[in-house]
Amino acid sequence: MTKLKNDLFIKACKRQPVERTPVWMMRQAGRFLPEYRAIREKIDFLTLCKTPELASEVTIQPVDIVGVDAAIIFSDILVIPEAMGMNLELIESKGPVFEKPIRSEADFYELNNIEPFTDLKFVLDAVSLTKKELNNRVPLIGFSGSPWTLLTYMVEGRSSKNFLNVKSMLYNNPKLVHTILDKLASVVADYLSAKLEAGADAVQIFDTWGGVLSQKDFKEFSLNYIAKIIANIKRDDQPVIVFAKGVHHSLKEIVKAGADVVGLDWTMELNKARSEMNDKAAIQGNMDPTMLFANNKVIKEEVKRILNSYGNGSGHIFNLGHGILPTTDPDKVKAFVNYVKEESVKYHFVQPHTIR
Amino acid sequence: MTKLKNDLFIKACKRQPVERTPVWMMRQAGRFLPEYRAIREKIDFLTLCKTPELASEVTIQPVDIVGVDAAIIFSDILVIPEAMGMNLELIESKGPVFEKPIRSEADFYELNNIEPFTDLKFVLDAVSLTKKELNNRVPLIGFSGSPWTLLTYMVEGRSSKNFLNVKSMLYNNPKLVHTILDKLASVVADYLSAKLEAGADAVQIFDTWGGVLSQKDFKEFSLNYIAKIIANIKRDDQPVIVFAKGVHHSLKEIVKAGADVVGLDWTMELNKARSEMNDKAAIQGNMDPTMLFANNKVIKEEVKRILNSYGNGSGHIFNLGHGILPTTDPDKVKAFVNYVKEESVKYHFVQPHTIR
Repeated sequence: MTKLKNDLFIKACKRQPVERTPVWMMRQAGRFLPEYRAIREKIDFLTLCKTPELASEVTIQPVDIVGVDAAIIFSDILVIPEAMGMNLELIESKGPVFEKPIRSEADFYELNNIEPFTDLKFVLDAVSLTKKELNNRVPLIGFSGSPWTLLTYMVEGRSSKNFLNVKSMLYNNPKLVHTILDKLASVVADYLSAKLEAGADAVQIFDTWGGVLSQKDFKEFSLNYIAKIIANIKRDDQPVIVFAKGVHHSLKEIVKAGADVVGLDWTMELNKARSEMNDKAAIQGNMDPTMLFANNKVIKEEVKRILNSYGNGSGHIFNLGHGILPTTDPDKVKAFVNYVKEESVKYHFVQPHTIR
Repeated sequence: MTKLKNDLFIKACKRQPVERTPVWMMRQAGRFLPEYRAIREKIDFLTLCKTPELASEVTIQPVDIVGVDAAIIFSDILVIPEAMGMNLELIESKGPVFEKPIRSEADFYELNNIEPFTDLKFVLDAVSLTKKELNNRVPLIGFSGSPWTLLTYMVEGRSSKNFLNVKSMLYNNPKLVHTILDKLASVVADYLSAKLEAGADAVQIFDTWGGVLSQKDFKEFSLNYIAKIIANIKRDDQPVIVFAKGVHHSLKEIVKAGADVVGLDWTMELNKARSEMNDKAAIQGNMDPTMLFANNKVIKEEVKRILNSYGNGSGHIFNLGHGILPTTDPDKVKAFVNYVKEESVKYHFVQPHTIR
């Protein structure tokens, strides 16, 4: 493997010394850049996911335009259920919609067995191509939804406020829910392994809806399967990031599940989380995405506050606490990325080398 | 003041010994009962709020029908901005909508100064009437939204996913936000004082959207004003409950703000919260409202788990971790209430007296 020119992100994931804190943003590929929207005007979201050349192009845009320290492959967590045979409509105003959600054992057994190397080849092709096009400028992150988060969409069929369908299934038919989650965990482990084989330098598991469960149910129905995935990912030493939004109660348990990096939303304090996790994993986060609608002075103050909360030393990857919002001004993003780069130097004790 | 026949709720709020754990449910008045929907077929939501006889009737329904240990006055938190002159449309499919949200200082200064005894007289009349009709069977709770939660609706104009408008205002014009919050805090303190004077036995402050803020901003923009309200409520020894959904990080601070009772959502563990709060306030909560869609065996197990998590002694008021959902089956609710009554006895060491 050729050496990365900017390896700050990978080093920080491994809590190795760095000369400044690396920064990237969830959902940075797609959404906020005019250059992305120009492509989306000509092609729908799902076709874009399935066209490696274009997926690769939008993946690299934020590296070129705003200078982030990592790229994350442009895709969607719902390509897995889509590949399993669920008809996915991506309607801008409503979010993703499955016209026939899973509501019974019979619905589940109608789904196809999938094999990432064939059924999700378009993602792997996009990864290989992006890796080549990036030319080792920055690392490339692959990702998947967690089994629980995938299940919420598969059962609800659309974005939900109360998660009543999936929770009712969890309470009244836990055996079926475990069967589906177990299946999804195998698929996700294979999928993330394949992405690493295709060239991804790290993978992130998004448990967007882990926080809607009680602590007990999060462990039983979400974290258990994340742990299973991490144990089954075929990898050398590429880091695994777990972002479980709203899961304020189980940081130590997420580390025990094998996460190298724990992603945090903006309701968490980095110093408390760091001390709770006892520096046994790196931390990624956690500025509120709405903060990018503040004036630059306020953004800079918030960057300083978050850096100061984490404190000295490596093990922090600066990120937002959730995906960047589509209406964010790219100039604000550029300013934000620069503030992190400038303000973080004083928290590290490594001589700057050739990396900007 | 005549003595309450069932004073379990009030005693538990004050952490005085009780023979079993009292139980009520947020949003129990309205929403799930067919008897409520029968009334709503003839009258719109806001008119119902403004008709004391009917508001009183739906307030008492859950006491009669499911046997809860407290009544909460039927109303809506948005009657305050409505009384201040904001035109409120309550559209079932969309939730509440203000056609002209507050987006500037000028918008704010167009609002009316209000005086609860005149401008919100219909709520106070409903309280007095309900108090009379209840005939001291159970205590009556009055409520208000917190200033921050009221502000989110007033600025967003409708339910929001990212709270981008109100947060942008908070970041870019904190002075205006503080001015509005301060005004709202005065109004809410007067409003809750008036409800207590009209006969309410306790009051609850709903900070439904406190949890969307960072810890720092929650303190500055929400908790500060809750503290101001509690300090300014005119009361004898009626308890004040603070329910700040999603605010997992500031339990001790909520107690310091003067809350007698802290309401918790279902992502919190009662034993941890109790120990963190060092038994300096009572705890209200925290079963996931979706749990009422489980079968009775699962509901009973969850009731037992929550009671066991709180442990021995008084200071726990059983409730849901958020409002009861409109499609909940009343038979499940009756079963749930009975489980709490039966299963909680063993955690208390007071001889049962005449109360059922």
